[in-house]
Amino acid sequence: MNNLISNTPQPPYYAVIFTSQRTPGDRGYAYTAGRLAELARTMPGFLGAESVRDEHGAGITVSYWQSEANMRHWLEQAEHAAARQLGNSVWYEDFSVRVARVERAYGKNRPG
Amino acid sequence: MNNLISNTPQPPYYAVIFTSQRTPGDRGYAYTAGRLAELARTMPGFLGAESVRDEHGAGITVSYWQSEANMRHWLEQAEHAAARQLGNSVWYEDFSVRVARVERAYGKNRPG
Repeated sequence: MNNLISNTPQPPYYAVIFTSQRTPGDRGYAYTAGRLAELARTMPGFLGAESVRDEHGAGITVSYWQSEANMRHWLEQAEHAAARQLGNSVWYEDFSVRVARVERAYGKNRPG
Repeated sequence: MNNLISNTPQPPYYAVIFTSQRTPGDRGYAYTAGRLAELARTMPGFLGAESVRDEHGAGITVSYWQSEANMRHWLEQAEHAAARQLGNSVWYEDFSVRVARVERAYGKNRPG
């Protein structure tokens, strides 16, 4: 076991799937990413987040939320932040955001 | 632009979020992962897949499907394959599968 996989409750709950390709160089990204991860943990309905980025700058982050309202609150907060503008213009060559309702979940040592 | 992000249609559609921590060593993993990726592309309703694994063996793969039936068909096929057994017993220290209905999507150069 490790801390990659979020210990989410029984579905239903909500997920934000954020897929992104970083531009070269840091340019403040690591600092802001850390701050946003801290902020997410303080938001109502936050259930966890899973994040992987490879050595070529390709990344997928999935955050989990108890309700659609919790998820929307987070997205609206994030969208309004300067971080989003910098993400669009500086940090990401490309990105996609998908919001989804998790309907079923299972895994190793986690029968569905 | 690059080929990380799947060019999915307007929602709704379905997503399988597979988060995993690899065990050390290959032990046939790369070959089988490539075969399964090829198989997915031939399945009815396959819309695309996004996959990232970092240098520590942490990975997230999200595959997208037109309908719940298409997604279930893929999962049932995969579950029945020997690959799933090997994944559980040999390749993955830990994993989680979440199936979700994508309700909204947007991104860079992809207004939602």
